[in-house]
Order: sequence, then C-alpha cells, then structure tokens
Amino acid sequence: MTDRTTEGTPFEEERRELIEVDDELMQDIEDIVRTRSDFLLLNILQDIYPADIAHITNRLDNEEAEYVFGLLTIPVASEVLLELDEHHREYLLKTLPQEKLTELVDAMDSDDAADIVGALSRERAESVLGTMDVEDSSHVEELLRYDESTAGGIMAKEVAVVEPDDTVKKAIRVVRRMAKEHKNIYNVYVTDENGFLVGAVPIQSLLLYAPNKRIRKIMKSDVVSATTDVDQEEVAQIFKKYDIISLPVTDTAGKLLGRITVDDIVDVLEEEHVEDVARMVGSDADEMARRSPAQIAWLRLPWVLLTLGLEMVAAYVVHRFDETLSQVILLASFMPIISALSGNTGLQSAAVVVRGLATGHVDLKRWWNPVSRQVQTTMIIGSACGALLGTVGAMWHGTTAFGFVVGVSMFLSINVSGIVGTITPMISKSFGFDPAITAGPFETAFQDVVGISIFLSIATLLIQFL
Amino acid sequence: MTDRTTEGTPFEEERRELIEVDDELMQDIEDIVRTRSDFLLLNILQDIYPADIAHITNRLDNEEAEYVFGLLTIPVASEVLLELDEHHREYLLKTLPQEKLTELVDAMDSDDAADIVGALSRERAESVLGTMDVEDSSHVEELLRYDESTAGGIMAKEVAVVEPDDTVKKAIRVVRRMAKEHKNIYNVYVTDENGFLVGAVPIQSLLLYAPNKRIRKIMKSDVVSATTDVDQEEVAQIFKKYDIISLPVTDTAGKLLGRITVDDIVDVLEEEHVEDVARMVGSDADEMARRSPAQIAWLRLPWVLLTLGLEMVAAYVVHRFDETLSQVILLASFMPIISALSGNTGLQSAAVVVRGLATGHVDLKRWWNPVSRQVQTTMIIGSACGALLGTVGAMWHGTTAFGFVVGVSMFLSINVSGIVGTITPMISKSFGFDPAITAGPFETAFQDVVGISIFLSIATLLIQFL
Repeated sequence: MTDRTTEGTPFEEERRELIEVDDELMQDIEDIVRTRSDFLLLNILQDIYPADIAHITNRLDNEEAEYVFGLLTIPVASEVLLELDEHHREYLLKTLPQEKLTELVDAMDSDDAADIVGALSRERAESVLGTMDVEDSSHVEELLRYDESTAGGIMAKEVAVVEPDDTVKKAIRVVRRMAKEHKNIYNVYVTDENGFLVGAVPIQSLLLYAPNKRIRKIMKSDVVSATTDVDQEEVAQIFKKYDIISLPVTDTAGKLLGRITVDDIVDVLEEEHVEDVARMVGSDADEMARRSPAQIAWLRLPWVLLTLGLEMVAAYVVHRFDETLSQVILLASFMPIISALSGNTGLQSAAVVVRGLATGHVDLKRWWNPVSRQVQTTMIIGSACGALLGTVGAMWHGTTAFGFVVGVSMFLSINVSGIVGTITPMISKSFGFDPAITAGPFETAFQDVVGISIFLSIATLLIQFL
Repeated sequence: MTDRTTEGTPFEEERRELIEVDDELMQDIEDIVRTRSDFLLLNILQDIYPADIAHITNRLDNEEAEYVFGLLTIPVASEVLLELDEHHREYLLKTLPQEKLTELVDAMDSDDAADIVGALSRERAESVLGTMDVEDSSHVEELLRYDESTAGGIMAKEVAVVEPDDTVKKAIRVVRRMAKEHKNIYNVYVTDENGFLVGAVPIQSLLLYAPNKRIRKIMKSDVVSATTDVDQEEVAQIFKKYDIISLPVTDTAGKLLGRITVDDIVDVLEEEHVEDVARMVGSDADEMARRSPAQIAWLRLPWVLLTLGLEMVAAYVVHRFDETLSQVILLASFMPIISALSGNTGLQSAAVVVRGLATGHVDLKRWWNPVSRQVQTTMIIGSACGALLGTVGAMWHGTTAFGFVVGVSMFLSINVSGIVGTITPMISKSFGFDPAITAGPFETAFQDVVGISIFLSIATLLIQFL
C-alpha cells in the first residue's frame, strides 16, 4: 500500500526511520506484547507511526493495551490516545494516573484536549484542568461549552494571528513561535484591533514577499469563515465547496475564536457517512466491528424487536384478510412482491431526500418540489411494474380480474411508498430530528403494512370476480 | 452559514470582496440571467466565488448556462467548469469552441486538466492536447494512462522538488516559481539524483530555518507515499490515518511521479460513500437529484424490474406451498415477519462486512473470523426473536405446534440470512467485484426466497400437527 520510500538511501544512519506495519509484522508485535519483552517492544515501537501503534493496541486486550501504552513517550502516547478506538480509550482514561493524563492532555492541541477532557468523569476532568497549563485549560474549558457537533465543538484555539499593519517579518515570527508546538499551520489570520477577522495569509505567501511588506497589502480579505454554531456537516460542505484546508471560526459578530483544519473534516465526513449508512440499515458497522458478538446482539436486539413489533401489525393486517386469502390462495404468492417493491421504492426515495437535505438540494420551504418530482418518477415506475405484474398475474391465475387486482395494487403501493418515503425525512427534519432515522427498518415495516393493506383491500373489493 | 467577515472594514475600497450567495440572491441572479442583462450580471459574477457561480449555473438550462459561462474570464471559467455537475459540464464541453477549451484546460492543474480531457471525445481531446502547452499536454497524457480511481488517476504532476544537498533558499525559490501558477503547495519533496523520493519538507519549515541550511538536515525522511496503482479509497484511508494534507505518489521503484492533495481526497470520500449508500438502496441519490423525473424512472427501472423478477421466484416458492397455506391460512400472516426480519439481518451483516472490507477490519484470508462472529451474534438474536415469535404464534393459533413452526423458522432464517449476508460480500470481493453490490435489492429478494422456503417447508413437514 505505502512504501518505505527511503530504503537504501544514504540517510539511513542519519535518522531513525518509521516503517509501515503489515499484517505479518502486526502478528509478530502481538506475540512480543504477549511475552512482555520490554526491550524488543520498545525497539519496535520507536520505529512505527503513532497511528499504527494505535491500530496494534486496538487489537489487544485491556491489560496488554495498558502495558504497551505505558512504554510510550508523552508526545507519542498523546497521539496514540487520540487514534485509539472508543473502548480502549475509555479503559485507559479510567486507569491512567492523573499526572500522566495531565501531561498527555497538555501535549495536545486544544481541540483534541477538549475531546479527551470531555470524555472524563466530572471529578477527573476538574483535577486535570486544575493541574494543566493555565492558558491551555481555559481554552479547553471554552471549547467544552460548544456543542460537540458544531464548528465551535471541533475548532482548535491555536491560531496564528497578526494585524493588517504588521509586516511579513512579524508574521513569520508568529508562525515560528507556534511551529514549536503545533504542526498544522496553514494560514496566518488577520484581525483588526478589536479581534475581528479581516483577512488571511496562506503561509506560502510569506515566502513570496519581502520581509518588510505590510500584511494588508498581501492578505486575502475575502476569507470564508463559519460561526461557532454551524453544524459540522455544513462545515464539511464548506471545505468541500471551496477546496480549503483551514477555516477560521468566529462568533456571530465576526470576532476570531479559532480554526478548523481539514484533517478533522476528513474524520467528520467519515463519521457522518457511517452514521447515515448505519441508520439506513439499522446498525453501525464500525461500532459492530469492535465489539464482541454478544455485545452486538445486545445492541441490535432492541431494533430487531422493534421491527418484529412493527411487522406484527403487518401480520395482523394479513390476518384480517384471511377469508379473502383462503378463497384465492394465489394472492399469498404476490404478497412478497408487493411488499418488497414498495419497501424498495420507499427506501430509494428516502435516500434521495436524506441526501438532498444534507447537500442543500432539497429545501424544506419548497417541500412540494421533491414530492412532485417523486410522484412523476413513481408514476412511471409504478405503471411499468403494475403493467408487468398485472400481465403475469392475469396469465398465472387465468383471469383478467386477478391481473387487474395485482397490477393496480402494485401501481398504487409504489406511488404511496414513494410519497411516504419522500415526506417522512422532511417531516422528521422539520421537527429537528435526523432525517436519516426514518429510513431503514421503520420504513420497511411501514411500507409492508401499507402495501399489503392496499393489495388485500382491493382483492377483497373485487373478490367476486376472482 | 458563512459570513462576509470583512464588512465595514477599512479595506473595502482597496480590493473587491467576494460575497456569499444565499437563496434570495440566487433567485435574483436567475432572473437577471433570464433577462440577459449582461452588465448587471457581469457585475454580480465578479463578486461571487467560482464555486457559487457553478452552483447557480447548475440550476440553469443549457442555453442559459452557456450564456453565463461565456461571460467569465478564463481563470474563473476553468474553476467553474470543474465544479459544474456532470450534465452541464458535458453540454459545455460539447459546445465550447476548441480554442477556448484549450485555454481553459491550460489554466488548470494537471489532474483537473486530465479529468476534463478524459471526458472529451477522442478527436476533440487530440486537438486540445495538440494545441496546449507542450509540457502540460505530456503531463495530461501521462495521467490519462492511469486508472481513474487509483492514486495515479487522481494525482497531479505539479510538484515542488529539491535535492538533499540543496539549501532552504533554493527550496524557497522553487516554491516561489510554482506559486505563480498553483495554489496548493504544502510540501517540497526531496529526491535523489535519480528522482527517487527520499524526503519531504513542509513549507512551514522553510520559514523556520536559515536560508543556507541544507535540506537534508531539515527534511522528514519517513514520508508516507503511495504507488500509482493504489485504489483511491485506500489513498483516502492513508490520509485519514496519518492526518496528512498531501501525499507523494511514486512508481513501484520509488521514483517520484506526482502528488495528491487533501481537497481531492474530500471529494473521493464523498464519492465513495455516495456509491456505498447508492448500492445499499439501489439508487444514487446525488445522481437522482440532478435529473428529470422521467430520466430517473428510466435509470431506476432496470433495477426495479430485476427486483421484480427475483421476487417472482419468491412468489413461485409460495405458490408451491398453496396447499399448506390453504390448510393453515394463518401461516400467511407470519410470512411478512419472517421475510422482513431475515432481510434486515442479512442487510446488517452485509453492511458490517462491506465496511470491514473497506477499513481493513475484515481480512479475506481470515474469512471464518467474521462468519463465526456473525453466527454467534445471530444465534442470540435468532433465539430471542424465535422464542418471542413462537410464543405469539402458539397463542394466536392456539397450538404449540404452530408456535414451534414459526419460532424455529424465525431462528433458522435469521441465522441463514446472517451467514449469507456475511459471506456474499466476501465472495464478491474475492472475485474482484465491489462488495457493496451484493447488499441491497438482491439481498432482500434472496432472503425473501430463503426465509419463506424455510418457513413453509417446516410448516408442510409438520402440517399434521397444525
């Protein structure tokens, strides 16, 4: 996948190089951990990326993880901690001595520090905040006040700032000072004397101009920014739309408060999409990969039982039509078709609307627009399926009436499912819920009830012709 | 969402500022386009971001889009062209005069230029390549040789390169030269005399060291890289794992060929996830939002009809059990429950495995691992659902035998669905297909057939007790 690109170069002696971890090496490392060979392990850990150490640690049990973590230096340990899965992180946060925890948090950027402190118990959070660097702790406290999933919740406080009348030389000095502790500096932001954001200078620009050039002459003043309350998914869309790698965050008046960098946005995008898929299928795949089968069963059971409950309604509906069914038993054969296709149509419509709401293509104020588009689409699909199924039904049962019943039911249920699938995500959004929640198992069960009701009602109405 | 952050600052006269486009402004602009008021429109277009111009253009019909596009300067037009949706881009690429097209492509970075040239007809592509800058055209030709969805297909050729014995001063000169035409310079890459990648220097480091310092002293030699054939989804995972914003791409020997920047990765992540969701529900939501209802129906119909065909098999299975059903009509009521729950279990299992294959949690060489986990999970879920449904069935029908039939069927079909849902994505991956393709409509139809077969077979076997 990735290479040891520097293998065999003359620099090998000069500095230690990090190597990639493949499956085999991973297995070897696990064995070494299990035999507690400190010396061997320390040697290997020095040679691999923190992200890979985290990956290895995720595969160990709690005690082994604690042992490996104990061998790491503070800067490496703080990076590893951030990359661990939730289960292992939670365990370490519970068991680490408080002084070590403070050191680790102190070594992090404020946004990461806030994530860690936010995951601690109240007392432990307070004692960590009380013992860490005063400026850092006030940053963390500020960040903890914002909703986790907003621009304020994901921004960091570490910003390189200059004023318009400063020179390029001053800006370089600011970057140098910050660079000692922080890696992700992509822009120097420009604020006026009151702290209001008035511009930005990409750090590459600092290389292009003479040291005594004024910042106001070289800054971009049309800088895109977000306020602290913007949802993280919207923030991600801003990054995507404007192809930026860093976004300043301000209060509603325009005062600069922090910045978000693209590496966090990559995580947000993953997170949001995993969530969307999870809701569609009713389970969180990432979550599932990390838990024991019994835990997974326990997590999934409530949803499965809920689906079971909803499907009981469908069963009851069928039961009410027992008489019709026993007169024309072939109707039972067509039930799976009707419910599968209306379920499928409903889910597709829901997926389109959920996505449209996320990207802004669908606007709640113009709700009739997607609905009318959906009706037009499902009229065509419903007609095609209805005609086809009607023909099959007529031939199979040998009566046009039967074909008429299955054909019309197919047409109607596809249309109803399309409309319901379109409207429910919008209704749930307008009530402030996540629109994706209505797609998935609920959708399926609901469409089963609707599809089967339509089908068997029409059959009952026309039973004398069947 | 985002602010005009510089409103009211003293810089307003100094440089023109770009403004954000909200829905109302969008409407106004559309009206101006429709009345062909060149002067007004030119004035507005100068004030907004290219991404927003693209967004507006996407909402216009072909001729209006052509009109707006004709008013733009080459640098803006080339950015807008890249942000347009497929439909509008295709139209413009067909109708633009060849000279203008060449100018637009010439103004782009090589990766974007390759995307555009790759979308042209053969003749047009050749004439554009023939008239554009020679170095640029050889870059584009090279890029077009790589598979679109690999590191080679998404990389750009524009790379700032120095050698280990060069000085910081030399590196700054290289960056300055590149910065005239290109915006996204985050790293200077270091190659040996044969062009092999040996290190990287983030451009912020150039600000930190004395001009006469040697690059070999300040470069990071443990730089993560990818070879041209790595799949774009894996490339995205590398960015995510190592929190990087730029990745060098080499041939298999380690020779530097280009680089990928994070803004393209953000697009890849979106694209891959949209694809995944699309396959799960059997429709591409983004695609759908842009087409006319008739086009959507046309695109969806093959899938819907395929599902219809597969469900016919389920119908036939039910039909084969007509006799059983007519003897115990209540069985029909439990059919929707059995098929919904096995469909749901299958889809969840498939989602977990598809995701696991993408993130590397699931390894084909250890295929029994997810299967055994899945069996353990579905044993628990199946037992719970089976017991519950069995009890309900026994009470409803008034016989233990009926309860036994529905309970055991529920248990078995959930287990079979779980296993099938787990195995099929792995099989499809091992044959080189996208694993997600087996989730979705196929899954549902297949589980319907399996679930109903199990259920009605058991019922038939035990019919004398019902």
